[in-house]
Amino acid sequence: MNEFIWPIRVYYEDTDSGGVVYHSNYLNFMERARTEWLRAMGLEQDDIIKQHSLVFVVHSLSIDYIKPALFNEALVVKTHIEKLARASIIFKQVIVKQGTDADNEQILTQATVKIVSLSLAKKRPSPLPKVIYEKFSQSLLS
Amino acid sequence: MNEFIWPIRVYYEDTDSGGVVYHSNYLNFMERARTEWLRAMGLEQDDIIKQHSLVFVVHSLSIDYIKPALFNEALVVKTHIEKLARASIIFKQVIVKQGTDADNEQILTQATVKIVSLSLAKKRPSPLPKVIYEKFSQSLLS
Amino acid sequence: MNEFIWPIRVYYEDTDSGGVVYHSNYLNFMERARTEWLRAMGLEQDDIIKQHSLVFVVHSLSIDYIKPALFNEALVVKTHIEKLARASIIFKQVIVKQGTDADNEQILTQATVKIVSLSLAKKRPSPLPKVIYEKFSQSLLS
Amino acid sequence: MNEFIWPIRVYYEDTDSGGVVYHSNYLNFMERARTEWLRAMGLEQDDIIKQHSLVFVVHSLSIDYIKPALFNEALVVKTHIEKLARASIIFKQVIVKQGTDADNEQILTQATVKIVSLSLAKKRPSPLPKVIYEKFSQSLLS
Repeated sequence: MNEFIWPIRVYYEDTDSGGVVYHSNYLNFMERARTEWLRAMGLEQDDIIKQHSLVFVVHSLSIDYIKPALFNEALVVKTHIEKLARASIIFKQVIVKQGTDADNEQILTQATVKIVSLSLAKKRPSPLPKVIYEKFSQSLLS
Repeated sequence: MNEFIWPIRVYYEDTDSGGVVYHSNYLNFMERARTEWLRAMGLEQDDIIKQHSLVFVVHSLSIDYIKPALFNEALVVKTHIEKLARASIIFKQVIVKQGTDADNEQILTQATVKIVSLSLAKKRPSPLPKVIYEKFSQSLLS
Repeated sequence: MNEFIWPIRVYYEDTDSGGVVYHSNYLNFMERARTEWLRAMGLEQDDIIKQHSLVFVVHSLSIDYIKPALFNEALVVKTHIEKLARASIIFKQVIVKQGTDADNEQILTQATVKIVSLSLAKKRPSPLPKVIYEKFSQSLLS
Repeated sequence: MNEFIWPIRVYYEDTDSGGVVYHSNYLNFMERARTEWLRAMGLEQDDIIKQHSLVFVVHSLSIDYIKPALFNEALVVKTHIEKLARASIIFKQVIVKQGTDADNEQILTQATVKIVSLSLAKKRPSPLPKVIYEKFSQSLLS
């Protein structure tokens, strides 16, 4: 499994008056991680829009909130592909609190996120371009 | 089924450069609706914290994005309880685009959201106070 | 002075772990109020984009934070034009906490916001269309 | 002048349907930079709250929006102290678009932000603790 690691710092803007990260903001953290996962493969979403006239949109997701993240904490988002299809990708993403070593890290939240490749012209799902599909396949296998 | 209706207007802050409402912001709309559903029953969350020393937290959710909402659109969040337990509530929430009549409304997104009643002292799930549980039961039956 | 009144309810999403509304979110409240002020005059921003090919953008602003707003509070944004020019409007906006009567309301924050009418084609300031300028003038005078 | 540099990447969450970064989100970027400036000096805000029972709050600010930032752009926030007083700090913060070298960078937005040191007990301005004041003074002089 090829897992992509992206660090996130919790700022005041991310928290709410309950003293924890506001529940929808974890989805923002996860999208930042997917964006950086693409970038690490040499794929920039603004280029993909221009070259292939397609965007990646969130089709559906489910998320479990296990432990809350607090102001100022250093988190890590772990991302990998669970399933790759012609016009969609299912990601598994876990947010953990950085411990001093890998053994004592705590899972704070975990999600399954289905992303669809959408044609901007037709506003309909459209197969991933071959060059992108192959990069995703390699990520899945490595 | 006792369905609670709450209107939402889409402002610039809610949208992203894809021209649609950013995916995590629908969760904010849904939480506003749950807050107003409580208020409509005479329950204020800041009072509940003070009186019962408990908060409602999001335990888990799943959401389907069907059609995007656009800048300036008038939406409606429809909320009802799907399942009521001792220390948790499962809500079904649907966001629709307001049409000229009920027949032509479009479902934009739908979610199942599990909320847990959490003791502030113990940081653990805690049964709903009787007075609140009964109000929720009535909402379920009516 | 023709003052436009728009109510705002504070939800969890608006607050931070300091227990108060996060400082940049007051600007969102103020933009909602400017949007509703336009709508109250019969002006919809998406129509203005289509018909006149121009958008209103924030050019600059200054804001004073006097007292914090808390979770669940009912606020009011008061908006009026301070200065109207060919291609810009300076708004004065005040956010108050709703009291039981007008006498005991508290000013929480106040801002001066300069909005510029921007041509989408030229990406430069562009005079307000006559029909819009006249509506704004009436608001100023009434 | 001791300028602190903090990089920011623009994600979808930061943009609006106008295709640019939403105006209030630049304030979030600037607060992230102030937080990291403190951290770079060895000061963690959660520790300051615990040890000194004080928080830094935004007292007032003014901001000019010069050029918009776009989705996926790599920005830099430049921060320095303009004025240091007993219980307040005035920061000058500029957001620039990262160019290939320092000569061709573009200023996108600039702000003056007054931060006050607030006693949590008294809810009033409170002098900066000596150890913190001295670190800020050094930053100002170096």
